[in-house]
Amino acid sequence: MRRFLTDRARRAVAASLRGATRAAAPSPAPAPAAALSRPSPSAMAAYMARAMSTSAAGTPPVSLDTINPKVLEFKYAVRGEIVTHAQNLEQELHKNPESLPFDEILYCNIGNPHSLGQQPVTFFREVLSLCDHPALLDKSETHALYSSDAIERAWQILEKIPGRATGAYSHSQGVKGLRDEIAAGIAARDGFHASGDNIFLTDGASPAVHIMMQLLIRSEKDGILCPLPQYPLYSASIALHGGSFVPYFLDEETGWGLEVDELKKQVDEARSKGITVRALVVINPGNPTGQVLAEENQKKIVEFCKNEGLVLLADEVYQENIYVEDKQFHSFKKIARSMGYTDDDLPLVSFQSVSKGYYGECGKRGGYMEVTGFNADVREQIYKVASVNLCSNISGQILTSLIMNPPKVGDESYESFMVERDGIISSLARRAKALEEAFNSLEGITCNKAEGAMYLFPRLHLPQKAIGAAQAAGAAPDAYYALRLLQATGIVVVPGSGFGQAPGTYHFRCTILPQEDKIPAIISRFKEFHEKFMDEFRDVSRDEAPTGTTIESGGD
Amino acid sequence: MRRFLTDRARRAVAASLRGATRAAAPSPAPAPAAALSRPSPSAMAAYMARAMSTSAAGTPPVSLDTINPKVLEFKYAVRGEIVTHAQNLEQELHKNPESLPFDEILYCNIGNPHSLGQQPVTFFREVLSLCDHPALLDKSETHALYSSDAIERAWQILEKIPGRATGAYSHSQGVKGLRDEIAAGIAARDGFHASGDNIFLTDGASPAVHIMMQLLIRSEKDGILCPLPQYPLYSASIALHGGSFVPYFLDEETGWGLEVDELKKQVDEARSKGITVRALVVINPGNPTGQVLAEENQKKIVEFCKNEGLVLLADEVYQENIYVEDKQFHSFKKIARSMGYTDDDLPLVSFQSVSKGYYGECGKRGGYMEVTGFNADVREQIYKVASVNLCSNISGQILTSLIMNPPKVGDESYESFMVERDGIISSLARRAKALEEAFNSLEGITCNKAEGAMYLFPRLHLPQKAIGAAQAAGAAPDAYYALRLLQATGIVVVPGSGFGQAPGTYHFRCTILPQEDKIPAIISRFKEFHEKFMDEFRDVSRDEAPTGTTIESGGD
Repeated sequence: MRRFLTDRARRAVAASLRGATRAAAPSPAPAPAAALSRPSPSAMAAYMARAMSTSAAGTPPVSLDTINPKVLEFKYAVRGEIVTHAQNLEQELHKNPESLPFDEILYCNIGNPHSLGQQPVTFFREVLSLCDHPALLDKSETHALYSSDAIERAWQILEKIPGRATGAYSHSQGVKGLRDEIAAGIAARDGFHASGDNIFLTDGASPAVHIMMQLLIRSEKDGILCPLPQYPLYSASIALHGGSFVPYFLDEETGWGLEVDELKKQVDEARSKGITVRALVVINPGNPTGQVLAEENQKKIVEFCKNEGLVLLADEVYQENIYVEDKQFHSFKKIARSMGYTDDDLPLVSFQSVSKGYYGECGKRGGYMEVTGFNADVREQIYKVASVNLCSNISGQILTSLIMNPPKVGDESYESFMVERDGIISSLARRAKALEEAFNSLEGITCNKAEGAMYLFPRLHLPQKAIGAAQAAGAAPDAYYALRLLQATGIVVVPGSGFGQAPGTYHFRCTILPQEDKIPAIISRFKEFHEKFMDEFRDVSRDEAPTGTTIESGGD
Repeated sequence: MRRFLTDRARRAVAASLRGATRAAAPSPAPAPAAALSRPSPSAMAAYMARAMSTSAAGTPPVSLDTINPKVLEFKYAVRGEIVTHAQNLEQELHKNPESLPFDEILYCNIGNPHSLGQQPVTFFREVLSLCDHPALLDKSETHALYSSDAIERAWQILEKIPGRATGAYSHSQGVKGLRDEIAAGIAARDGFHASGDNIFLTDGASPAVHIMMQLLIRSEKDGILCPLPQYPLYSASIALHGGSFVPYFLDEETGWGLEVDELKKQVDEARSKGITVRALVVINPGNPTGQVLAEENQKKIVEFCKNEGLVLLADEVYQENIYVEDKQFHSFKKIARSMGYTDDDLPLVSFQSVSKGYYGECGKRGGYMEVTGFNADVREQIYKVASVNLCSNISGQILTSLIMNPPKVGDESYESFMVERDGIISSLARRAKALEEAFNSLEGITCNKAEGAMYLFPRLHLPQKAIGAAQAAGAAPDAYYALRLLQATGIVVVPGSGFGQAPGTYHFRCTILPQEDKIPAIISRFKEFHEKFMDEFRDVSRDEAPTGTTIESGGD
């Protein structure tokens, strides 16, 4: 029986990867017009896989040969091929529930808590609901449905919005009164002054990152230092804006440590190739790696940016997702100010989002960037770029002000709010621990502690035979593993190759977001799959290989 | 007294334009490193004006010399200098209400109806409010506050959203069920099939335009045909993506007619310069020009795109803003399908937004593009670009589905909805007519009929003396006029130079959006200003100049 399942799984993997296996074959499409517009192998593979569905008519005005090659080249793994495949399986399940060896798809590929059943924070939603329909505020019946402090807060927010018009474009940076409230929240968090004039409200953190890349990147000679592994928004945005991705490696051995020596080495190397390094991206807490930086480490990073003349782009969207007692979040601005650096010393941008934290309001598309240390004339240019989309959505702006100024002691909603908030955070911590322990209990998997964020990034020590099978199927070994996992269990994870990893190492990213009552079943499904996978591919010479390291040599 | 006011206005204009007058002076900043990164004169002017506030410390990591020159070069007049000046005046008014000759700033620069007092459509806001706080749907008290069909619709919408999770990221194109509903609305509007698979939900129309520009533009050798006058989103987006803006002139004499001969001429000219023309942008109803294209004209445009191998980018965001009985909106897709063209014949993108129409919900940032006629592999690349920002905001997605499927006969809200809807549209039509008549009654102004959209684009036949005064102040003549208008009346309009206009002609764009009870006062303030302006600058040789044309010759 197991043999049968394994064969079926193999055939399915082969079918799914057919495009990739054909990648090296010559294209039947018209020859690319120029080297610049030549599709990448993976894009070509996708093209081939879909060739049957394209029009057979003459040369179309737009084809893969004639679109922007930057678009063709970039990748975005968290919504990549494996997710598309999962969506197809989901449709299959819907049509024929008995057709697959599982009854639901579990999307652990993306930090999207509400999609897995996390409930919204009541107070936040009450305020949004009232602001969406301000006529409610004049009706006495409203008090039967909404808490009094939500009503009070909705009034306060409407007073901050010119004409109380939640349906109007705001200032391109966002509603001034909401920005001031956010700045007050930052100041309370850090103990240092913050100004609403420095806040740019955005539709989530991603558009803010794009604005900064658009500003800083002039050509492929401009480089942005990014961690590896990294959240692929950065590589995608750098590619789309035509810059150079300058990687620095996080050290898995020291819990994904960020060493300034490594930064220096990579900057020097990039410079020796004629790259002007413009900025350093730091993701803290880490994505996909989950580590929380220590204060001393952050000081060295600030010092490094100051000395090297780099903009510090601090992705701090997981600032409220800390799961261990010995670590604490410190914003880079707080660190820089505590070192005595002022606005004149260091250009620093902090990104924050309503999509993460305990609230996890991904669908609201709210967030901000706090922009400090830029000359006024450059600030003006950032403003201009923000202006082209007029403003971010007002509900997202309101929600951003709420997460930076949640209910306080004495407010009617405070106690129930704290129950909801602490319930979510403590449950996330328990889930992280349970998954981490489960991964570490398995042969061929090692997993660092999830100190923060929403992910685990376990390392796969794959048998050579599995690597060979992946190669035969034309896939990266971790992509092969993730696809097999999906096909056996319905669990969707993202292969480590989508985030970048040290050569010869393999990982996957798995969110900690399935609801707590589902975790035991997920662990047991995962375990069953993994053990079978290892049985299928275990190297004959396994006893000779050192445990806990990549099994690269030896073969079947 | 008039002399005094005039002098004061002159001084204020001069002060406000100081940066511009210095534009030609050499820069005290470090010499630009390369021609590519040299700031434009206007950016340099802005720099000079703000030099006092910048840091005096050594070379900063980021300066105007080292940012992306594409960012530096592009302009976005609807949120440009005149608006910044208006915001400053507003703050001045706030501090000292007696300091200026008016008591409020009237923002007629941007199509932002709610900011000028337009009320949201009740049914739409009820549904949004319920979807923001779905817990309300389980409570009996909710029926006292919301109409029954809004409750019913909220249930229907939640059923379309996986897990009813309005706080989750959706599919990158938007919630499938909402896209299907939008497609049904398009099919009902056009009488031709539409598919939810072709809908990409976006945070307003602007991000959708950027996605298409990002896809189509490879280098400055790729050109996009755009009308002149145009909405500056297009020129800004083309500049940011490094392409060439290929203008075609609308003919003011024939009510801003769009002639295919002119398109052909411009395409040929661009091609003779080595430009590959990729797409044609048509804005219908027109922005800033307000014309509604005739069906026959649209057919010729479709034919032209088909013959020339161009993508047709149809900005149809004003499709519900038609104010004359003899004109009707036809989508370009309907036109193409009625000509027998299928999905295989013509790549066509239609942009729609919740910001316009009778709803005017700018702050919600909702909209879609309907993408047809692209091969599946190219579609996949559009999907990938859309994925980088994960998804558009869910409230905006919901609202987009509502505007494409408003209450129907028999629904509880239908009658009150129609009263609100028709009230807004008929009032907009009256306002357009009143302003148009007022402009046409004035010496030196001619104004075409506002058939649709939200703007008038009157032509200024400025006396030579006024043009000279503007030149002396270092400003474009229409910018000078607009600034003087602002300083005298508080009315904010956008100079025609921000949209592009035929050489030697001057215009301004003025929205028709101030509430109806304010229109008479606005007209009288405008009239008073304009007459004084003409008195101040009237050419001595005026009697010799032909009336109704630009007075270019003759002098003081």
